[in-house]
Amino acid sequence: MLTGPFLDRNWMGQNADFASADIVMLGLPFDGTVSNRAGARFAPEQIRLASWGLEDYSPRFNKHLQDVNFHDAGDLELPLGNTYRSLDIIEENVRQIYQAGKRFFGVGGEHLVTLPAVKAAAAAFPDLAVVHFDAHTDLREQYLGEEMSHSAVIRHISKFVKDIRQIGIRSGTKEEFDFIKTRGMDASINDLKDTKIFVTVDLDVLDPSVMPGTGTPEAGGMDFNTLIDWFEKLKDFDIIGADVVELSPDYDPSGVSTAVAAKVIRELLMVC
Amino acid sequence: MLTGPFLDRNWMGQNADFASADIVMLGLPFDGTVSNRAGARFAPEQIRLASWGLEDYSPRFNKHLQDVNFHDAGDLELPLGNTYRSLDIIEENVRQIYQAGKRFFGVGGEHLVTLPAVKAAAAAFPDLAVVHFDAHTDLREQYLGEEMSHSAVIRHISKFVKDIRQIGIRSGTKEEFDFIKTRGMDASINDLKDTKIFVTVDLDVLDPSVMPGTGTPEAGGMDFNTLIDWFEKLKDFDIIGADVVELSPDYDPSGVSTAVAAKVIRELLMVC
Amino acid sequence: MLTGPFLDRNWMGQNADFASADIVMLGLPFDGTVSNRAGARFAPEQIRLASWGLEDYSPRFNKHLQDVNFHDAGDLELPLGNTYRSLDIIEENVRQIYQAGKRFFGVGGEHLVTLPAVKAAAAAFPDLAVVHFDAHTDLREQYLGEEMSHSAVIRHISKFVKDIRQIGIRSGTKEEFDFIKTRGMDASINDLKDTKIFVTVDLDVLDPSVMPGTGTPEAGGMDFNTLIDWFEKLKDFDIIGADVVELSPDYDPSGVSTAVAAKVIRELLMVC
Amino acid sequence: MLTGPFLDRNWMGQNADFASADIVMLGLPFDGTVSNRAGARFAPEQIRLASWGLEDYSPRFNKHLQDVNFHDAGDLELPLGNTYRSLDIIEENVRQIYQAGKRFFGVGGEHLVTLPAVKAAAAAFPDLAVVHFDAHTDLREQYLGEEMSHSAVIRHISKFVKDIRQIGIRSGTKEEFDFIKTRGMDASINDLKDTKIFVTVDLDVLDPSVMPGTGTPEAGGMDFNTLIDWFEKLKDFDIIGADVVELSPDYDPSGVSTAVAAKVIRELLMVC
Amino acid sequence: MLTGPFLDRNWMGQNADFASADIVMLGLPFDGTVSNRAGARFAPEQIRLASWGLEDYSPRFNKHLQDVNFHDAGDLELPLGNTYRSLDIIEENVRQIYQAGKRFFGVGGEHLVTLPAVKAAAAAFPDLAVVHFDAHTDLREQYLGEEMSHSAVIRHISKFVKDIRQIGIRSGTKEEFDFIKTRGMDASINDLKDTKIFVTVDLDVLDPSVMPGTGTPEAGGMDFNTLIDWFEKLKDFDIIGADVVELSPDYDPSGVSTAVAAKVIRELLMVC
Amino acid sequence: MLTGPFLDRNWMGQNADFASADIVMLGLPFDGTVSNRAGARFAPEQIRLASWGLEDYSPRFNKHLQDVNFHDAGDLELPLGNTYRSLDIIEENVRQIYQAGKRFFGVGGEHLVTLPAVKAAAAAFPDLAVVHFDAHTDLREQYLGEEMSHSAVIRHISKFVKDIRQIGIRSGTKEEFDFIKTRGMDASINDLKDTKIFVTVDLDVLDPSVMPGTGTPEAGGMDFNTLIDWFEKLKDFDIIGADVVELSPDYDPSGVSTAVAAKVIRELLMVC
Repeated sequence: MLTGPFLDRNWMGQNADFASADIVMLGLPFDGTVSNRAGARFAPEQIRLASWGLEDYSPRFNKHLQDVNFHDAGDLELPLGNTYRSLDIIEENVRQIYQAGKRFFGVGGEHLVTLPAVKAAAAAFPDLAVVHFDAHTDLREQYLGEEMSHSAVIRHISKFVKDIRQIGIRSGTKEEFDFIKTRGMDASINDLKDTKIFVTVDLDVLDPSVMPGTGTPEAGGMDFNTLIDWFEKLKDFDIIGADVVELSPDYDPSGVSTAVAAKVIRELLMVC
Repeated sequence: MLTGPFLDRNWMGQNADFASADIVMLGLPFDGTVSNRAGARFAPEQIRLASWGLEDYSPRFNKHLQDVNFHDAGDLELPLGNTYRSLDIIEENVRQIYQAGKRFFGVGGEHLVTLPAVKAAAAAFPDLAVVHFDAHTDLREQYLGEEMSHSAVIRHISKFVKDIRQIGIRSGTKEEFDFIKTRGMDASINDLKDTKIFVTVDLDVLDPSVMPGTGTPEAGGMDFNTLIDWFEKLKDFDIIGADVVELSPDYDPSGVSTAVAAKVIRELLMVC
Repeated sequence: MLTGPFLDRNWMGQNADFASADIVMLGLPFDGTVSNRAGARFAPEQIRLASWGLEDYSPRFNKHLQDVNFHDAGDLELPLGNTYRSLDIIEENVRQIYQAGKRFFGVGGEHLVTLPAVKAAAAAFPDLAVVHFDAHTDLREQYLGEEMSHSAVIRHISKFVKDIRQIGIRSGTKEEFDFIKTRGMDASINDLKDTKIFVTVDLDVLDPSVMPGTGTPEAGGMDFNTLIDWFEKLKDFDIIGADVVELSPDYDPSGVSTAVAAKVIRELLMVC
Repeated sequence: MLTGPFLDRNWMGQNADFASADIVMLGLPFDGTVSNRAGARFAPEQIRLASWGLEDYSPRFNKHLQDVNFHDAGDLELPLGNTYRSLDIIEENVRQIYQAGKRFFGVGGEHLVTLPAVKAAAAAFPDLAVVHFDAHTDLREQYLGEEMSHSAVIRHISKFVKDIRQIGIRSGTKEEFDFIKTRGMDASINDLKDTKIFVTVDLDVLDPSVMPGTGTPEAGGMDFNTLIDWFEKLKDFDIIGADVVELSPDYDPSGVSTAVAAKVIRELLMVC
Repeated sequence: MLTGPFLDRNWMGQNADFASADIVMLGLPFDGTVSNRAGARFAPEQIRLASWGLEDYSPRFNKHLQDVNFHDAGDLELPLGNTYRSLDIIEENVRQIYQAGKRFFGVGGEHLVTLPAVKAAAAAFPDLAVVHFDAHTDLREQYLGEEMSHSAVIRHISKFVKDIRQIGIRSGTKEEFDFIKTRGMDASINDLKDTKIFVTVDLDVLDPSVMPGTGTPEAGGMDFNTLIDWFEKLKDFDIIGADVVELSPDYDPSGVSTAVAAKVIRELLMVC
Repeated sequence: MLTGPFLDRNWMGQNADFASADIVMLGLPFDGTVSNRAGARFAPEQIRLASWGLEDYSPRFNKHLQDVNFHDAGDLELPLGNTYRSLDIIEENVRQIYQAGKRFFGVGGEHLVTLPAVKAAAAAFPDLAVVHFDAHTDLREQYLGEEMSHSAVIRHISKFVKDIRQIGIRSGTKEEFDFIKTRGMDASINDLKDTKIFVTVDLDVLDPSVMPGTGTPEAGGMDFNTLIDWFEKLKDFDIIGADVVELSPDYDPSGVSTAVAAKVIRELLMVC
């Protein structure tokens, strides 16, 4: 073997040992149902590379990535053309993470990957609530006749979790906005403090100026610090799983979207 | 004929029937006098395509595009190298819209296209005022010796409309800023509530981070929601015409500028 | 109605009347099974726009587009997430074209759209042969377990057409290259002169320098004129259908790939 | 004053002294009549910068730029919106170059800038012939009703020069191609050896793979070395003026088009 | 000589005469120690070009660039691979500026160029304080074993200036943040009013949405107007030198980052 | 541990076991002396990712990557700002590869990384010759006063290897071209068949149309197949080391340059 030194090719600051880690990060390179611009399949690896452009220390949370104790398990190999089988593979792996007594941290891929992940999490924690950051409601029953769509992911999840709260929403059908109101799914989260929660972040919750590299850019979103303010509120919550989805790196030739996604993940890890 | 189904290639949510529509949308692919970066000629068609990435429902105005009752008439064919003839064609078509008892909604093209449109509108409504969103004063008498320039469009308009108000201005010569002060053309609009107004939106009123795809990016602009706040103020005004100009789509390879332009148009339609 | 003049938004030089046209052009915006980089769904409309940057006269074939007598029928609306239903819609529409006694000219979309098109063509012309321009063999039985993949399209077609010839191939598995040899599917086409043929052009047959905007760029391809030389050879063949697929316009910010695709289509129309 | 050293900001290898130079290089940042994609106005300065990425030695011609003895006079300031005045300014300055007993070397800008330059050259050399490298015939009488268009430049020139030869042409109307034939304007140049010639190079004569950053990319062009082979043929001709036009640098984010344009200029200077 | 008119190729609004100018602007095209994405070497010339897209009048400061009385001295020629020699050349030239009784205004280049500039300034003004705008602390002692790194520039400066204040910092190691606290280097600047100060602006202090074209984009930064608010606070301070660094223009194909950098410089000049 | 399946993140087709491999591939992410456009430091990892877009079978050589028996050892961590130390680390690791009785295959990084690699190879094989593919001679003694420059790498190598042959050269100073002639370093290679050779491929030997993503694009290069023809000639030579350098992936937003680089490496591996 060679003496190197060699560049580490895993997420910066990870714990290389699965067994002793508290959190398992899993890349989910799937974008088979994207209705607008695809490419989210390339996100997990590009974010991993971009993580090395960050510091491992977060001044906001006064904490190092090493304190988080997460293991980067790599990216699943998913058959893009077969949505159902892809979702099964994700669900099975996330289930194994919870069976090992660990927490799951997903890196998408499109938002539909959240469905099997939350299914596996809800199997482990029956009273699970979901805190959902997004520009879009994702509450359709189907899209162009397809039930399995990233536009329907939260609707499907709403059928088996106890509670959902949505933050940053600014686009959807009138029916979807009515559904939010009827179900009490708005952005108030304080009553969830004693509930196990799964945090899912669709990066298009950020304004397109901050995150141009995404499949469905929607003007009028929040800036980076506002999102991290929300994470800070979640610091004392009982987060048992999380994911960050919908970066489409090729749509931003400046590379900034990927760098922002990496920092969103770093800061979200700090409160998990 | 074929059974399809076929994609609709007009603006999302339009009324396909000219006769029954209240508003007529007209694409104005002209950029012959642009002083810096051209390409606004490509905007009308790219915005039309991008409109399908939006929802037809605006949660901000709790209204559907279909409720607006606008007809997408397509894009005029303009002889780019001949400024005067291009302006004549625009004026004649806009005049026909007003003669048909309808309102005009233009999609530029560079800002000079607003001159013939407002001329035609002022012919129909003699006491017309103009509400002007822009980074630049556009109050020069000429630019490099040319009277017909997108830098002079509002100066020319000021000669035949009753009133002009400017919002978002952050660039111009000292003479232009003095002209604004002398004429009382600042951003206060409340006294215009009972006046017929024409709303012209130069997209560079938005910050370049939000709208990089424009000919003359000018740092320090407003964000998307601030612009829509202004539109909300205009909801109770008597808007008899409007346009949105100066997207240069090729300068933003992420496609976000075009998506933002489409949403600006959707929201402005909601208050027309 | 307005006097305009208005820009024509159909393919340059088309016959606006379906009934009297000899050839029907159909846009097929589908890219649901793409194994590498998606985005071919955006190709048909962008190519249509780019057609107006060309002349309607081809000096190579000394012929005008108007002489071809083709009708641009627009783009099918396809449920991207549902491969089978998308393919059914394509097949049904192409069948209608042949039932109307016309020839089909498809604009993809990914290469899988060729499967239902050739199925419909073969139903009309039982002894059909396929002339296949591509960098890739596309002869897999499945890809990542999926039978319906753009990597398998020609294999599936090989089961129901009389003959296939492949031109420009430079990538595949050893098994695929052996399959070509066993089946006699190489680039010799002279014996097909009296056979009805369907010509399918995967644009990645061109070198990536000529066509960077494609899903699976493969170095070492032919240049533009070599491809048109092949078309010239096909001038005296009995082409009853054709398609041009796999432009992914967003991957080429220079716009050149889209312009090249439009010209490939213009020249192929000249020999259909 | 400071001791530096400072970067030279003129064209690499120029003679800083106008009086003693044999050739005067003039930047012509005009693109007011471009029918497709504009931006050629930015070319002269970007090419100047890119010249420093080259060597001053040409191995093909075994000669240094310093041996050419050319002076970089800078870029004219042209009123883009006023075509006629812009052309007048160019003509007047080129006339001064010839009156000073020097030869002219122009850097466009769009192709229309060649019209006043050749006018001034023809005033000095009445029997002038033009050797024209281009993808397009540029032989229209007018474009969209405009006489002054980059699509008409060679037609206008044909009215006052003795002879024109066109090399690389692959696009035009049937009428234009007939005009070429009638006038004997094809690519044979040997009989011009004893004639004063003006060489005008529209960079889109190169294939779009080589030169994506141009206003009207036209597939099927020549590669770089073929163009330089033509320059080599011209080595023994009596070139009294030349220009290189139609780079639109912003359309090629890789910067390669600008680098290629700079090298085309370096090699053309070698034979002037 | 020619009558022109010619485009001015220096910074807009400069005083062409070194002797009578109060401020000397110097381009410093060096990026040899950049840890992430290079390219800052191309900034000085691209910003100079972009300055012509601005007005010379600043409405914020109600002042013209001509009132600033600055001379654009051009760009130093620096041996990129030799960090120490490059820094020496910079120091020597800046020293000459102060010896001539003028103030220095630098345009980077990477941030390390600030070290020799401040050294020369501190030689002229021994009680100098530095006001430092940046996303990053730049307080490392070394980076990957290298003392001379843009990540260490402020640490080295801290050893010979009286005081440093940091504004906009949001990234660094825990040790660096502790260093800031210990040394009292936070953003309070009011007590520096009677001190000679050097203002150094790393453009990544702006949010990456505003300034994507930089080497180390760091989410969560300030917007343009907030930065100019800081400049306005500095209006009454005794600024004896300043620089603006770390634009990497090639990373932003929209050109907006370069336009923003030019305006940052214009506004900073207004308070110098 | 999880059941996956997981994506392999090493070079496609590698042997995961160092000990049993014949060839060791080493990434060398260094670009500290690049004279024009940097970014080659990002190449090794992006090429590794792009390798998965290729087939593992080469039809040209009728061979699989698995038959090559190479091990992907990862990328060295190099202190960019310290050229000498970076070169030492490379030399030491390459020496270890030869001491283990294996052959070296480097992936740059800029061309200077070839110097320590060939040093280590020449220590193992004293009569080594170098076959050098490049647009540039790289034969300067120094560049801007720096001895250690990618423009000088072959000159330095020429001092300790037996022989050098250069292929594809089209740029250099007159002195460099004279040096080639004097030393007999032209493209004839047949007499090297019985000599141990090291093959170094600067990717800018390819035409910029094929490889825009490189630091110093130089028009007039060879196309992909011509380069592979050269590799085919080398099939029977005794190649004991090789490298492929100077991809700068960020300069080609289409991603094609990276895909081409990956295929160049695959084909070169086939003949090693």
